Amino acid sequence: MDRVNVAIIGNGPAGISAAITAKARNKSILLFGSSKASAKVEKAHQINNYPGLPAVSGSELAAALNRHLEQMEITLTEEQISKVYAMGDYYMIQTAAGMYEADTVILATGVVMGKPLQGENEFLGRGVSYCATCDAMFYKNKPVAVIGYNEEAASEAEFLASVCSQVYYLPVGKAAVPSGDNITILSGKVQSINGDRTVNELQLDSGSVTVDGVFVLRDAVAPETLVPGLEIDGAHAKVDLQMRTNLPGLFACGDIAGLPYQYIKSAGQGNTAALSAVSYLSEKKQKQ
Amino acid sequence: MDRVNVAIIGNGPAGISAAITAKARNKSILLFGSSKASAKVEKAHQINNYPGLPAVSGSELAAALNRHLEQMEITLTEEQISKVYAMGDYYMIQTAAGMYEADTVILATGVVMGKPLQGENEFLGRGVSYCATCDAMFYKNKPVAVIGYNEEAASEAEFLASVCSQVYYLPVGKAAVPSGDNITILSGKVQSINGDRTVNELQLDSGSVTVDGVFVLRDAVAPETLVPGLEIDGAHAKVDLQMRTNLPGLFACGDIAGLPYQYIKSAGQGNTAALSAVSYLSEKKQKQ
Repeated sequence: MDRVNVAIIGNGPAGISAAITAKARNKSILLFGSSKASAKVEKAHQINNYPGLPAVSGSELAAALNRHLEQMEITLTEEQISKVYAMGDYYMIQTAAGMYEADTVILATGVVMGKPLQGENEFLGRGVSYCATCDAMFYKNKPVAVIGYNEEAASEAEFLASVCSQVYYLPVGKAAVPSGDNITILSGKVQSINGDRTVNELQLDSGSVTVDGVFVLRDAVAPETLVPGLEIDGAHAKVDLQMRTNLPGLFACGDIAGLPYQYIKSAGQGNTAALSAVSYLSEKKQKQ
Repeated sequence: MDRVNVAIIGNGPAGISAAITAKARNKSILLFGSSKASAKVEKAHQINNYPGLPAVSGSELAAALNRHLEQMEITLTEEQISKVYAMGDYYMIQTAAGMYEADTVILATGVVMGKPLQGENEFLGRGVSYCATCDAMFYKNKPVAVIGYNEEAASEAEFLASVCSQVYYLPVGKAAVPSGDNITILSGKVQSINGDRTVNELQLDSGSVTVDGVFVLRDAVAPETLVPGLEIDGAHAKVDLQMRTNLPGLFACGDIAGLPYQYIKSAGQGNTAALSAVSYLSEKKQKQ
């Protein structure tokens, strides 16, 4: 696969805006996201402060944004990103299906709400994983737990069940539920992920299960987990007014770039991030 | 006149967005601007990167923004602002017609393109003025020059001609031209505004005129001229990611807050500025 100029991760208003502006500037782009992502916008009842679209429903706004993508012939690459690596001169983007390369990356993944689970950060990479497709093989014929926050989590749990000896599945909120002979549905609230050198237990308020791994499957992962080396500010990527992060060629916009969490603010920052990526590309070209 | 919660100066996409969000948050607002301001948006041929409104013409976008104001019952106060004074606890806003008071101010005036004229900053307040209505009386029965950048400049020059002994009028670009017995139309390019302690000459490449005052009538004035004490960064007001300036309760958004000059970026920043003003108001209330 050819290296693209701009890879955009996330297809909320920030990512869509970034894609539209980068494409309008004749850059080759990849827009990663999920058709479920616009479902989040769709859930909004009424949006009064997106200037130019008075009193739109969430589904009208989502439809308008998707129509805009269609009109500009921008297609969505429906793959979840597990890691973004800064390679110096370019970026490597790891998905479950493979690797992509891009000169610049725009993070528009949204933000992880709430605190990490007790033990989540401590055991990350030592039993805690965010990507079933990436890490399933480490748990071949072993018991694992899945904490499913989104709709895709159920099918990922079913995939894990085909590899692991046992899958304990805890749905959070309205997440769908998987089915299979070696899948046990849990209920309750997570208290902690416990272990020694590596994970050995998921503790709920209703009891505990003995596992070798815990998959935490959310829509968004913490920015510093997604991009090693990224400077953060609390739950957000640290950016300047041009949406630049501390990593040259990497930009962030929308909720991941800080408060307020608003559609029009995200769309505005997506535009700025794309134009900063365009500037970065042309400066890089001049240096060569 | 009652003090309003939020005064918004400028009715481009940034000011309109700020007004919409402040109103949606039930704040009392004043939106200052000119019906000519949306004429600037109208002049844009086609805008491809305002997400949700694919391939709109400038006039369609301007109409959509104005419809949004109407739908939210926001009216425009058509007065030009000459000064904004930080009074500690509130702001005084000076227009040709009088004074207004506001708890917070959002600057969305756009940006002054190009460098100031030679001598403009040096003689500001000592013969150089930006407001005919404010300063005409200082030049009663004296000769003045008007450098007119916008359409309103012609009628301001005609007003000056009713007070001053002689008006020399230099239209810049496509500015309209005034008429009157004591109005002389100049042509050429400004070289410098000269003087001693105060202004005594306007020097063009085509010759010079002897005057006691020079009125420079642009759409926007430099931010530090509009708001004494405002910290700037080149041609822009210095802001943080929440659109806060160095003055508590004063926010800036859109072109005045820096590059890129883009409709959707302005709309996004307007939203952020309004929500920052709302936060500031509620923090202030808690302290009382």
